Amino acid sequence: MLLSKLVCERTKEAPQDAKIKSHILLSRAGFIKQVAGGIFSMTMPCQKMSGKIQAIIRQEMDALDGQEVLFPVVMPRELWESSDRYNTIGSEMVRFKDRCGRDMLLGMTHEEAAVHLANHIVSSYAQLPMMIYQIQTKFRDEARSRGGLIRVREFTMKDAYSFHETKEDLEEYYYKMFDAYYRIFKRIGLKRFIDIKSDSGMMGGSVAHEFMLLTEVGEDSIVLCNHCDYRANMEVAECELSAPECESGQLQLVYTGEDKTIEQVCGRLNSKPELSCKAVVFAVKGSSDEVVIAFVRGDLEVNEAKLKKVIRKDVVAYEGGVNQTVVCGNIGPYQLDSKITVVYDKSLENVNSLIIGANKPEYHYVGFNFKRDMPDANFYDIAKVKAGAKCPVCGGELRIENGIEIGNIFQLGTKYTKSMDMTVHGANGENFNPIMGCYGIGVGRAIASVAQESSDEKGLILPMTIAPWHVHICPLRLDDETVSSKAYELYDLLKNSGTDVLFDDRNVAAGVKFNDADLMGMPIRVVISPKSLATDEVEITIRSTRESNKIAYRDAVETIKSIVKSELDRLNA
Amino acid sequence: MLLSKLVCERTKEAPQDAKIKSHILLSRAGFIKQVAGGIFSMTMPCQKMSGKIQAIIRQEMDALDGQEVLFPVVMPRELWESSDRYNTIGSEMVRFKDRCGRDMLLGMTHEEAAVHLANHIVSSYAQLPMMIYQIQTKFRDEARSRGGLIRVREFTMKDAYSFHETKEDLEEYYYKMFDAYYRIFKRIGLKRFIDIKSDSGMMGGSVAHEFMLLTEVGEDSIVLCNHCDYRANMEVAECELSAPECESGQLQLVYTGEDKTIEQVCGRLNSKPELSCKAVVFAVKGSSDEVVIAFVRGDLEVNEAKLKKVIRKDVVAYEGGVNQTVVCGNIGPYQLDSKITVVYDKSLENVNSLIIGANKPEYHYVGFNFKRDMPDANFYDIAKVKAGAKCPVCGGELRIENGIEIGNIFQLGTKYTKSMDMTVHGANGENFNPIMGCYGIGVGRAIASVAQESSDEKGLILPMTIAPWHVHICPLRLDDETVSSKAYELYDLLKNSGTDVLFDDRNVAAGVKFNDADLMGMPIRVVISPKSLATDEVEITIRSTRESNKIAYRDAVETIKSIVKSELDRLNA
Repeated sequence: MLLSKLVCERTKEAPQDAKIKSHILLSRAGFIKQVAGGIFSMTMPCQKMSGKIQAIIRQEMDALDGQEVLFPVVMPRELWESSDRYNTIGSEMVRFKDRCGRDMLLGMTHEEAAVHLANHIVSSYAQLPMMIYQIQTKFRDEARSRGGLIRVREFTMKDAYSFHETKEDLEEYYYKMFDAYYRIFKRIGLKRFIDIKSDSGMMGGSVAHEFMLLTEVGEDSIVLCNHCDYRANMEVAECELSAPECESGQLQLVYTGEDKTIEQVCGRLNSKPELSCKAVVFAVKGSSDEVVIAFVRGDLEVNEAKLKKVIRKDVVAYEGGVNQTVVCGNIGPYQLDSKITVVYDKSLENVNSLIIGANKPEYHYVGFNFKRDMPDANFYDIAKVKAGAKCPVCGGELRIENGIEIGNIFQLGTKYTKSMDMTVHGANGENFNPIMGCYGIGVGRAIASVAQESSDEKGLILPMTIAPWHVHICPLRLDDETVSSKAYELYDLLKNSGTDVLFDDRNVAAGVKFNDADLMGMPIRVVISPKSLATDEVEITIRSTRESNKIAYRDAVETIKSIVKSELDRLNA
Repeated sequence: MLLSKLVCERTKEAPQDAKIKSHILLSRAGFIKQVAGGIFSMTMPCQKMSGKIQAIIRQEMDALDGQEVLFPVVMPRELWESSDRYNTIGSEMVRFKDRCGRDMLLGMTHEEAAVHLANHIVSSYAQLPMMIYQIQTKFRDEARSRGGLIRVREFTMKDAYSFHETKEDLEEYYYKMFDAYYRIFKRIGLKRFIDIKSDSGMMGGSVAHEFMLLTEVGEDSIVLCNHCDYRANMEVAECELSAPECESGQLQLVYTGEDKTIEQVCGRLNSKPELSCKAVVFAVKGSSDEVVIAFVRGDLEVNEAKLKKVIRKDVVAYEGGVNQTVVCGNIGPYQLDSKITVVYDKSLENVNSLIIGANKPEYHYVGFNFKRDMPDANFYDIAKVKAGAKCPVCGGELRIENGIEIGNIFQLGTKYTKSMDMTVHGANGENFNPIMGCYGIGVGRAIASVAQESSDEKGLILPMTIAPWHVHICPLRLDDETVSSKAYELYDLLKNSGTDVLFDDRNVAAGVKFNDADLMGMPIRVVISPKSLATDEVEITIRSTRESNKIAYRDAVETIKSIVKSELDRLNA
C-alpha cells in the first residue's frame, strides 16, 4: 500500500473529547473517525487489524468445532418475548416499529436467535455438544459511550453459543473456551490480562468469567490478592473482615445534634468509623415509594450489585421526599419502621459495640450489639471490598486495580432452552432442555486494548499478528533514482513474498516520515536512503524495542521475512 | 465437517410461503432459517458460501486499489440531512430515536458516510482517484420482502465509493469496475447475466448500470434486442414505434354512449387501438388534489418511471373523487381543463387520425391530429416498451425477459461532495468537488441467484468457487470396519491437502445419504462402500453433470484435487 493513497490522515492533535491513550492514538493515526457519539467509521488500517483479529478468533473457534453462522441484527419483539428479555432490558436496547407497525429491536446479544436457529435442527443428544458462533455488528445504546473504541454503541463482536447434554459436559467445554480465550488474547498481542469470576447479570446463569486487561484507564474495579491467585470483579468480590476489637457497651441514647455523617458523629463521640453503622438508602427502580436501606460498617461502602442480588430488585440512589419515616442522617437498624426493607452487611454481625442512628433527629445510640439487641437479624455480604482487606481464599492482602473487559464467558444453564421450549431427545428416551454456554469478544474493544497497552509517547506499537502491515518502508530522497528503484524493488519483493507492506512514497522530510511511522506503529521500519545505499545497506528498526540495525540490501527480504515469521510464531505459539 | 454434527436440517417440505426454486432449495437444504419477514439466520453452509463470495469480491476490489473500511450501520439524522436524503427517502429507511431522543437511522447505503470519512482526509488531487469499500449489514424495510434471500430486509452488501478529479477519470474507473463485476459474477458461477443501463433513482447522478440475472422468477422486466446488443431496464427502455398507417380525417364529435375502454370504443367505431389515444390519470404523491394525465397510444401502457422523470414528481394511481373536471372514460387531449398537468407520449405525435375522449360524458372525437389540432403540444417518451417493438439502436425486434438485479453501479457526479461540501485542492490551485461513483453487490442475493440458476429437481448444484465444501463423502455401511477406516482416512487426507470436505458419518440408508448430497449440492460426491472397496475403488460423481466414475482408492486424493483445481481455475479464469 502506498501511503500517499491511503485514506487515513495523521494529525498532531487528537479530538477534544479524547482523554485516554488508545482513543488519542487511534484518532491521531487516522485509524478511526467518529460519526456520532459512540459510533465510528474505521479506515483501512483499522479494518485490516479487525480482519486479522477476526481471523485469529475464527481459527480458535473452529478448533473447538464451532460452526460459523450469521444471525440478524434486527429481530422481532416476539423472539425476545419468548425469553422474557424484551421487557426486562432497559433503554440500552434499541426498539423501533417497522413500516407495518411491528415492534423490532437491534440485537445486543443473540441467545434467542441461537436457540431459534438450533431448535428443531438439533433434536438428538448425539448432536451434542454443539457450538455456533457469529462475528457481526451489534448496537447497544450506551448511556455514556467514551474512550474511542473502548465503550462504543456500535461494535463488531464474536458471540458463540454452545449446547450440552449435561452440566459436566458444559463445564468441560466452558474451560476449553476459557483456554481458547487466553490463546486469542495472547495471539493478538495483549500482555497484562487476567480472568476473573463475574456476575452473569442480564444473561442469566451462574458461573461466568470476565477477561480483563489491567490498565489504569479501565472503568471496572478488580480485586486481586497479593499472595494467591484470587481475583474477582468488584461486583462479586467477597468482603472478608475481622471484627474490630472493642468492649461490649450498654445501649444508650446520645445527643448528636446536627452531626449526621459518619465522620462527624464519630468525631463528636471520639470513636472510629469501623465501630459505627452506616445506613445507605436506595429507591426500588420503577416503584415510586419503596425504599431499601442497606446497613454497612461505617468504614465501608455498599456494593450495589451484591445488594441487588440479595433483594432481587433493581435499585437506584434514593433522592428523598417520599418516605416520611426515614430520618436521613440518623437512620439506624434499631426500632426502624418495620415496613421498610433492610439489609445488614455481615461486617456488622460481630461488632460488640456500634454507634447507630436512633431514627429520630439529633440522636444516635451507642453500645448497640446486633447479637444481643436484634438477635433475629440476618446478615449478607453487601459491602464493597477495600484495598488491604483480607483475601477470602488465603487471608492475604487484597489490592484493587482498574481493568477493561476484553471478553466474557457464561454458563447459562437452561434459561433460554427452557423458556423457548427447546428439547432434545436423550439417550434414555426422555427429552431434555440442552444446557447452554455463551462466549463473547468485542473486536473493536480488542483493538483499543492493544492500542492502550502497546504504545508509547510517539504512537502505537502494533503486534505482528494484527498489524495492518508488517513492514513500513521509509525511503528518504525518493527523487534520487537509485533510492527510488531500490526502494520500489524491495517493496515489490516483500509484497510478492507474502509480507504486508506499507510504502511511504511521499516527498516529505525524513522527520515527517519517521513521526508517521512511529505514530502508526507497524512492527518493522525499513529506511532506505542515499547514505544507506552508499554501503549497499538498509536500516531496519523494530518498533517495539527501537533496536536498529544496518543490513545488506541483498539480505533485506530474507531478514525481514525471518523477523516477521519469528514474531508471528512467538505470538501464535 | 461431520454431517451428523452440522446444525443444518434437510427437509422434504419447504416453508409454505416459499414459491421460487432458490427459496425452496435453500430452505430445504437447511441453509437459511427465517426469523421474521425478510429476515433470516444463515447456518454454517450458507455462511461459508457467503465468506467465499466475500473473498472473491475483496480480491476484485483490492485489484482496483480499493481500501476496505467499515462504516456504521446506525447513523445520525444530521449526516443524512447534509445530503438532503433524510426527508426524501420513504419508509423503507428505518428511523428511531436513541435513548437521548436523537434521531438515528439504519443505513441502506453509505454515500454520506463515505464522504464524511473521506472529507478533509483526501485534500489534494494527487490522492485521486481513490476508492473505499465495505462489506457490511444493511437494513431496508421493504414493503414486500419475498423469495427467501432474493428480496430481504436485512442483507450483507459490498458497497464501494470512488472519488475522481474529472468526469473522464470517473468513466475510466467506472468501466474497470464494470469489468470487475463481470469477473465477480462469472467467478461465483453465474451464467445468464447481463448488464443494462438503468435509472439512477434515489442515488442521484446520471449514468448507471444494473447487472441482471435473467430468470423467469425475476421481478424486473428487461428489454432486449434479438438482433443487436441493446438491452435496458423497462424503466428506462426507449420505445420506438412507427406510426400506424392511416388517412387523415376530419375532427368530428361522435356519440359513444357508455363505452369507455379503448376496446369498447374502438369496437363501436370499428377502429384499432393503435389509432386511439389512451388517457391514464395519476395523482401527485403527497398532494391531495393535483392530478397528472398521461396520454399514450391506445395499444400501449404508461411507464411510470419515465413519466416521473418528465414531470419530476412522484405519482400514484389516481383513485378518483377529487378533481371534478375529469370525465373518466372520456378524457382526451382536446379542450381539456388547462389547469391539469398533461404529458403526451411520442407515439401519438405522427398519427394522422386518432380517436380521443371528448371530455364530456358519452362522447369521443374521431379524426384528431395533434400536428393540425394542437400544434403546440410537446411529446415525451413515456410509454412502456412492448415485446415486438423496434430496437432504438438497430431497428430489430425487442423481446422482454424477467431478471433479478445482482449488482449495480452508478456515476454519481458531485451530488454528495457538493451538498456535503467536500473540496479537494486541484493542480491548478483551485478547489473542486470530487466526482463520485458508487458500486453495490448484495452477497445474499448472489447466493439466491446461484441457487436459482444452478439447481435441478433434486437440489442445489453449487459452483466449486463458492460451495461450502468441495467434496461430500458418502460412505455406505460405516459399520463395516474397512469402509470406516478407508473413508475416514480419505477424509483426513483430503482435509490435510486443503480441500473442504463434508463427511456423511450417519448410519442411514444409501438413499438418504444420496438425497441429502443431491439437495445440498456439493460439486463432487465420493461414494465409498464394501462393493467399491472390493476392487479397491471409490466412486466419484460430479454434481453438475451427474457423470460418475470409479477410480482406484489410491488415486482418489490426487484425482479429486485435480478436479477441484481445474474447476476453480475455469471459474476464476
